[in-house]
Amino acid sequence: MTRTVYVNGSYLPETEATVSIFDRGFLMADGVYEVTSVLGGKLIDFGGHAARLERSLSELDMASPVTMAALLEIHRELVRLNNIDEGLIYLQITRGNPGDRDFAFPDPQKTPSTIVLFTQAKPGLADSPAAKKGLRVISIDDIRWGRRDIKTVQLLYPSMGKMMAKKAGVDDAWFVEDGKVTEGTSNNAYIVKGGKIITRDLSSDILHGITRAAVLRFAREAQMEVEERAFTVAEAQGADEAYITSASAFVLPVVEIDGVALGCGTPGPVATRLREIYLDESRKAAV
Amino acid sequence: MTRTVYVNGSYLPETEATVSIFDRGFLMADGVYEVTSVLGGKLIDFGGHAARLERSLSELDMASPVTMAALLEIHRELVRLNNIDEGLIYLQITRGNPGDRDFAFPDPQKTPSTIVLFTQAKPGLADSPAAKKGLRVISIDDIRWGRRDIKTVQLLYPSMGKMMAKKAGVDDAWFVEDGKVTEGTSNNAYIVKGGKIITRDLSSDILHGITRAAVLRFAREAQMEVEERAFTVAEAQGADEAYITSASAFVLPVVEIDGVALGCGTPGPVATRLREIYLDESRKAAV
Repeated sequence: MTRTVYVNGSYLPETEATVSIFDRGFLMADGVYEVTSVLGGKLIDFGGHAARLERSLSELDMASPVTMAALLEIHRELVRLNNIDEGLIYLQITRGNPGDRDFAFPDPQKTPSTIVLFTQAKPGLADSPAAKKGLRVISIDDIRWGRRDIKTVQLLYPSMGKMMAKKAGVDDAWFVEDGKVTEGTSNNAYIVKGGKIITRDLSSDILHGITRAAVLRFAREAQMEVEERAFTVAEAQGADEAYITSASAFVLPVVEIDGVALGCGTPGPVATRLREIYLDESRKAAV
Repeated sequence: MTRTVYVNGSYLPETEATVSIFDRGFLMADGVYEVTSVLGGKLIDFGGHAARLERSLSELDMASPVTMAALLEIHRELVRLNNIDEGLIYLQITRGNPGDRDFAFPDPQKTPSTIVLFTQAKPGLADSPAAKKGLRVISIDDIRWGRRDIKTVQLLYPSMGKMMAKKAGVDDAWFVEDGKVTEGTSNNAYIVKGGKIITRDLSSDILHGITRAAVLRFAREAQMEVEERAFTVAEAQGADEAYITSASAFVLPVVEIDGVALGCGTPGPVATRLREIYLDESRKAAV
């Protein structure tokens, strides 16, 4: 089936969806993005993603080509047009096409931002086999730029990290900087020790995960203890369990780090419980 | 005049030059580039740029869609079609359009790389007023990723640096990491003290400038002393002169760093002489 995608005000077949070679997203990675999950045809945590998008744009002095209300309608229309029950909606905004290449930002009055959205159907998204099996990860150096709190399309190194994981025969990689885990290639990282959830505190070192915020809120509401601080790979290897969160993976247990099995080497109860709570609560709040 | 550009085997009007929204250059900054100057209708240092391009591709396990010989012919054809006497040719290769978004690299057998080239006419390129006036720069934190030796399109922070310079009312910014200057936003940085040229040694901290290599070779041939090591902003401010090199700027003197004038605050003799030598020798060797 040919998807219908959205580019700068038009709904069109994916095969016809293009941007200029002069688009700053293509030439300079001058763009930001969001990924929103769809469950039961409804959007998960849309408000959180819209708010983070506005922050990313603001941090980069980039104009939004649409209001957040209009953005919600575009998301819903794409769900409808592509008949998405479970899946993802990807959104990207770039600083547009100034008609030529220059390091200096173009005048936003003359160069409107580019906006692109497309869907990815993922039947079974909420019922991932990885939730039962758990993920195996390796640790790799975190050599990304210093503003990981801005969700930019500078994703080459996360892509390279995924390939390093693939080459090592595991599922994903966790980034390590100055001896401490920052986050996964496209997710936030957590360990659990003695019932306490430990995850890196917010700063420009990591993405401020929308799913992270929700899961920590649910954990605290369930009287679980949460400590927001950095941890080492050795501490993670000695933890009772570990997990990751992201908008598309929700909560997924991690059962092995750099070849060392955590606990019994099977998904832990905290991760399993948090996944259930997150999916239940998010479905209820979906729009 | 509408430029003729090159996209994946076709010469076409710039207004019709597009890439898919699924191109990895657009979605993930998964691409590399080169900029080659044109003087008198001929290519400057083409061999150096082609060699660096091959290295960038190789470091990223990316396939080249063309041979370097074919690339030379495309460059020459674009110069001819656009009647470029002085200007630039921009070249970008990305990991192509796999038809959807995924962090993992696509199979290069199924997803050919994308190749894009376009010209920028710059009459007077070799006779820049900045060569007589000199540049004023500020220093800013270097928060870029750790593989600056690969010439990727992850240029958001260099763009932000240019904007910081603009806001500060100066011409450019020099990046500083761990107290030492790495390089300029789109150029290599040098100081001159007691007749000795000092510039940061090659590593993954900086781009391995093609113009840098040529200028250092010419300097050594002219019996100038060259020391390749990192230097601080304070050392630069106390230098006799400073300058930058890049493929499009050649050699340009720097006369002020963070508000402190260097020497007499006018272009220094070493930078001026090196610019002359570089332009003379490069014109002779142009293809």
